[in-house]
Amino acid sequence: MEKFRSEINFDANGLIPAIVQDADTNEVLMLAYVNEESLRLTLEKGETHFWSRSRGELWHKGATSGNVQRVVEVLVDCDADTLLVRVRPAGPACHTGEQTCFYRDLENKSS
Amino acid sequence: MEKFRSEINFDANGLIPAIVQDADTNEVLMLAYVNEESLRLTLEKGETHFWSRSRGELWHKGATSGNVQRVVEVLVDCDADTLLVRVRPAGPACHTGEQTCFYRDLENKSS
Repeated sequence: MEKFRSEINFDANGLIPAIVQDADTNEVLMLAYVNEESLRLTLEKGETHFWSRSRGELWHKGATSGNVQRVVEVLVDCDADTLLVRVRPAGPACHTGEQTCFYRDLENKSS
Repeated sequence: MEKFRSEINFDANGLIPAIVQDADTNEVLMLAYVNEESLRLTLEKGETHFWSRSRGELWHKGATSGNVQRVVEVLVDCDADTLLVRVRPAGPACHTGEQTCFYRDLENKSS
């Protein structure tokens, strides 16, 4: 557990982006940020934990909605500054109720 | 083209993270950052363009390697601060030659 910290390139704010992907469908569900503590909790508890930049607090995904995300595997990219967290979600990832936060086409959205 | 700019929440540095996913296999290939100009080029040219934070310059993915990424669709997340770019890649996404930059398991890596 101690080792990975020195091998991950957390940014100046101590954060790294984490892409969350459904391990069964391979659908990309969301992107959020983790700091050391939320990454430790994600690995220890086997459910995703993030750092909410807007609220400035630790965030256990699904703690209130019940839509937790069970961790299947955590991958790190070549330069160790992004994580890919593959999960089995208990429900929709998005606070809007959509399965994924990426439910809008950029160009249709802006037309 | 002008419209989307006001609808995307670029960060204080004028950047937004873009997840790149293979549109056929749904494999997550990489994460990079776009600014307004690289997003405009991505949409206009139909191939991914990014902003290299380390080099401080515009980056046409595959310009030297030939491993361009043809854009299939660009999705934006619920709070408009992350893009999901679905592509058909001409070759490996990673500079190491791996198909995806996410080829390492975090926990194996640190053991």
